[in-house]
Amino acid sequence: MSFDSSPVPALNLVPFVSVDDMMQTVLDIGVEEMLAGIAAYIEEDFARWEKFDKTPRLAAHSSVGVIELMPTSDGEEYAFKYVNGHPKNTKEGLQTVTAFGVLADVDSGYPVLISEMTILTALRTAAMSAVAARHLAPAAADTMAIIGNGAQSEFQALAFQGLLGINKLRLYDVDPVATEKCAANLAGRGFEIVRCASGQEAVEGAQIITTVTADKQYATILTDNMVGAGVHINAIGGDCPGKTELHKDILLRSDIFVEYPPQTRIEGEIQQLDADHPVIELWQVIVGQREGRSSARQVTLFDSVGFAIEDFSALRYLRDQLERTGRYENLDMIADPDEPRDLFGMILRAGAQR
Amino acid sequence: MSFDSSPVPALNLVPFVSVDDMMQTVLDIGVEEMLAGIAAYIEEDFARWEKFDKTPRLAAHSSVGVIELMPTSDGEEYAFKYVNGHPKNTKEGLQTVTAFGVLADVDSGYPVLISEMTILTALRTAAMSAVAARHLAPAAADTMAIIGNGAQSEFQALAFQGLLGINKLRLYDVDPVATEKCAANLAGRGFEIVRCASGQEAVEGAQIITTVTADKQYATILTDNMVGAGVHINAIGGDCPGKTELHKDILLRSDIFVEYPPQTRIEGEIQQLDADHPVIELWQVIVGQREGRSSARQVTLFDSVGFAIEDFSALRYLRDQLERTGRYENLDMIADPDEPRDLFGMILRAGAQR
Repeated sequence: MSFDSSPVPALNLVPFVSVDDMMQTVLDIGVEEMLAGIAAYIEEDFARWEKFDKTPRLAAHSSVGVIELMPTSDGEEYAFKYVNGHPKNTKEGLQTVTAFGVLADVDSGYPVLISEMTILTALRTAAMSAVAARHLAPAAADTMAIIGNGAQSEFQALAFQGLLGINKLRLYDVDPVATEKCAANLAGRGFEIVRCASGQEAVEGAQIITTVTADKQYATILTDNMVGAGVHINAIGGDCPGKTELHKDILLRSDIFVEYPPQTRIEGEIQQLDADHPVIELWQVIVGQREGRSSARQVTLFDSVGFAIEDFSALRYLRDQLERTGRYENLDMIADPDEPRDLFGMILRAGAQR
Repeated sequence: MSFDSSPVPALNLVPFVSVDDMMQTVLDIGVEEMLAGIAAYIEEDFARWEKFDKTPRLAAHSSVGVIELMPTSDGEEYAFKYVNGHPKNTKEGLQTVTAFGVLADVDSGYPVLISEMTILTALRTAAMSAVAARHLAPAAADTMAIIGNGAQSEFQALAFQGLLGINKLRLYDVDPVATEKCAANLAGRGFEIVRCASGQEAVEGAQIITTVTADKQYATILTDNMVGAGVHINAIGGDCPGKTELHKDILLRSDIFVEYPPQTRIEGEIQQLDADHPVIELWQVIVGQREGRSSARQVTLFDSVGFAIEDFSALRYLRDQLERTGRYENLDMIADPDEPRDLFGMILRAGAQR
């Protein structure tokens, strides 16, 4: 499908990538190439961080969950993501998190892409983790512990394999069924996988520890004694107020790297720390203003909560694949009367054609 | 089309109302009934004003325009509108304003409707004006001046005819072509229409003056001498910072009614006044806390800028018509794996089915 083949004038139309289109896109391109591509777009956008309009997400909280809008713009393109978080949904057969997003042209204000973003967010979150780890993890790392083997775990594994060469996984989840699911999904992809009976066992020998659990509460997935010198911690699961995964003592002896401090201080692991506790913004490492890993014994922590620029990058990447994949449909979403002042006449003419 | 007839599980699906669906909806229901229906929903929502989460729109400004997100929620449903404003678009064959919106269920966080909102916003803006005028205009009004005969003018005329019995229109636009367009579109609908050569001529004998021009600058569509005692002014066109239509002296002798003061003080006619100039919130009039029109000689001014709750009301109304009209398609927008933790497995299974 292309813009030109449609009988409707193209100005009306906004390409829409459905859930099925997104799955087919992942299968067409290959998940590894897609993770690498999104990582490259994220790194490119983080390298021009100061060009972006940045704002903490706009959240509407209720007693059972939250609905958020995450907008950002680099002055040329604009993106926002709609995302909810409803932990109780799972019990009702619904998703905890669903998301969709829009990319728009700043010059005209017209939307240029609307996409499902549940799968795309999973991809960009893993790509973001790998981008951070390239700057922060020990260079010789080959083993990653993944604590929490839910929906994000396979994406993390594949991103770290593709971008850092991690081929040994140590998996742990409170529910062994999740670990089996993760291991089965990753079978045949060149990993050496060890199923572990505890978090303690999982971290043994791992140079990278990824925590990606789903409890919406203060939890202690990692205690201080579990974290040895030289480790990189990739903390994904603590991503909203009241939800953390790491014991505070770990934070106190780590160099902490974050996406956007005003948001991370509210949502990340560092909500446990004083508001002025020093953190390093990842973009500063990417542009070379600050050092990433500087010694072999340093504990580095990427306190990831997910920021709007990552969604912007992922939507940009997806838009740039549309022509190649053809995996979209055009939505007739923009009213386009022949004469801009004659919106009512457009309706009258539609009536005359019936 | 119904939710149940689709082969895809309904949880995936979000009804989408395209531009064509919206035009057909207006034609099926009838523009007068639709305006009356949206007005009823707006009045109902304004009557429970205090239940809503309210925030000024979230705007991303550029040198050529603005992209805004307008969210609100009553605790049970959540809505937002995406809307741009690019005055230079017209010269490039594009719309100055395009919009779409989403209604979502607060309990699950799931979107339940996505819709074009260029046409729907035109309808809700006119419905809002008529709701305000029912409380503010002289009871015996039968004549309305419309200064500015662009895309909004016919909707205003039809809303005031349907909800207030206004059958005499006095039209003026700097471009006589716009006036001809408006008069032609309204032919055969029971109006007595006078085409006027100036704003001054248009307001003669009118009990209601609607100003709805499009210049993005401080303008003086109405000067003080043009506004007689007892008139209701429905000021629609001044709706962003730097854009006003009325001379300040008119404001100083009017009782001013607004939607949401924090937004109107930035965007409305009252940006010309001190920040503490007294205004009356329209919802207070609707619930009976404040008086609307209280004397025959009073000049009332509805300083309308458009607020998120009106879009919420319009989307609610539209959602409630879907079953009746069938004018929508279902979008596969929500990822819905059989097992919520198995997003990656869902992709693998899609691959196995190819």
